[in-house]
Amino acid sequence: MSDTVEKVIIIGSGPAGHTAAIYAARAELSPLMFEGFMAGGVAAGGQLTTTTEVENYPGFPKGITGPELMDQMKEQSIHHGTRIITETVESVDLNSTPKKVFVGSGDKAQTYLAETVIIATGATAKRLHIKGEDVLWQKGISACAVCDGALPMFREQPLVVIGGGDSACEEASYLAKFGSTVHMLVRRDELRASKAMQKRVFNNEKIKIHWNTNALEAVGSEPNAFGQSFLEAVKVKNNKTGEESSIEAKGLFYAIGHTPNTAFLDGQLPVDDAGYVVAEPGTTATSISGCLHAEM
Amino acid sequence: MSDTVEKVIIIGSGPAGHTAAIYAARAELSPLMFEGFMAGGVAAGGQLTTTTEVENYPGFPKGITGPELMDQMKEQSIHHGTRIITETVESVDLNSTPKKVFVGSGDKAQTYLAETVIIATGATAKRLHIKGEDVLWQKGISACAVCDGALPMFREQPLVVIGGGDSACEEASYLAKFGSTVHMLVRRDELRASKAMQKRVFNNEKIKIHWNTNALEAVGSEPNAFGQSFLEAVKVKNNKTGEESSIEAKGLFYAIGHTPNTAFLDGQLPVDDAGYVVAEPGTTATSISGCLHAEM
Repeated sequence: MSDTVEKVIIIGSGPAGHTAAIYAARAELSPLMFEGFMAGGVAAGGQLTTTTEVENYPGFPKGITGPELMDQMKEQSIHHGTRIITETVESVDLNSTPKKVFVGSGDKAQTYLAETVIIATGATAKRLHIKGEDVLWQKGISACAVCDGALPMFREQPLVVIGGGDSACEEASYLAKFGSTVHMLVRRDELRASKAMQKRVFNNEKIKIHWNTNALEAVGSEPNAFGQSFLEAVKVKNNKTGEESSIEAKGLFYAIGHTPNTAFLDGQLPVDDAGYVVAEPGTTATSISGCLHAEM
Repeated sequence: MSDTVEKVIIIGSGPAGHTAAIYAARAELSPLMFEGFMAGGVAAGGQLTTTTEVENYPGFPKGITGPELMDQMKEQSIHHGTRIITETVESVDLNSTPKKVFVGSGDKAQTYLAETVIIATGATAKRLHIKGEDVLWQKGISACAVCDGALPMFREQPLVVIGGGDSACEEASYLAKFGSTVHMLVRRDELRASKAMQKRVFNNEKIKIHWNTNALEAVGSEPNAFGQSFLEAVKVKNNKTGEESSIEAKGLFYAIGHTPNTAFLDGQLPVDDAGYVVAEPGTTATSISGCLHAEM
């Protein structure tokens, strides 16, 4: 363990982490960022690294790819004086003075000290890990309808949404603006969503609900000249009757929730029902002095 | 008055307005934006149009000028289907159905109708309108220390902050990281700031407080080959003794507050003590259904 006490350690390297880094670095706090190594199952840079075109980040009229945007944010953080380490934080001690950040394990375990810790670990969209999913991710499959639904590839095409909660209903309603038909795959025989959201879905002629239905496989097209395959159909199974069938679809949207990346906190900060760190409304202040929560 | 009822009218054209426009347009709501014509005293695009280099907007590692950033946001809004009118909204009727938006006056008065109105008019930093201010604005004079304080032109230079509240103390403390000396000009013989902020300022050896002092004039250098002049000194007057003097300074930061651009609402929405529209914490929802408040 080194004796150096950092002014600020930032955990996480998505847009929130890099925004915190840019501000902290410009304030001469010389922040140290742990960007993670496949932390939460995604590369350094966070969930945006799993997307292709980003059309809704203000400032880029022609769009920018997710990985490119995160590269630029990283370059900006470094330019202003952020130091970045590509390791994943395993645990923290937020109640000691200075605070402790534990990185790596076994022989490679290291402890870093900091006056202030900024938690910017965000969340990871849940996946189903069905057959074909990895290959077709962002080639028809997405976990964010609001981000990706308006892309040209989905216009007037049949689309599939998986989920039965408020988010799934909202995403299905949103996608119905673009797609020809929106198929909702609901595992049970009812929606978990609020009555108001249910009504909106039931009243939308473009949305077709498939009850008691699980997705089995994402089926892609024959690879094109660049070796790329795009989603063409979703194989499904009725979990009551056992019947299998195939739904033609150019888009498959997961709306089955997110996992907040907070396990490493080991209960040191209060979290809400969904597992997200609770900060004072409108601020980044958590219940522990010197520990901030950054999110976008 | 046309009978057309817009789905969404956006009032304001700063980052919040254009972000709302990009999202609304991508959701096929075909928003209509009133970007204003010198509304709140600044050009369409809002306060960023009055700045030069922007270093802290994530995504631009080499920085971008304020006007350029706002041009790009505008282009993006239009690209996705926002219609923009360069006029200032004079008043609104948020309680009618549909809501009414009144633009222009006299013969040119026009009324627009909308299901939803998004208020994104932000605020304008207060200025003193002292001699030299217009010419030297952003050539040494700024209304945002956090935005501009870290720029190379202010490093190890004498700086001046005007104001005696919490913001002024915070900005002075922030600027003390960069400048050689920070002079605080305080109109009265005490600070309005909280005790904690006062203490931070009093304990900072780099900060020198000038009590009972008003700024009289911003003095610029001889114009360079491009005809540009930069701040060199601030003329001040002790309002108790009447004594005038000059403080050498490369930076002059106004921290005398902001005026929220909400007069056109004529009390239809509740505002907080500082005059800002109150929205439900963490959301854009105001007290009137179908009226949203967007801010960055």
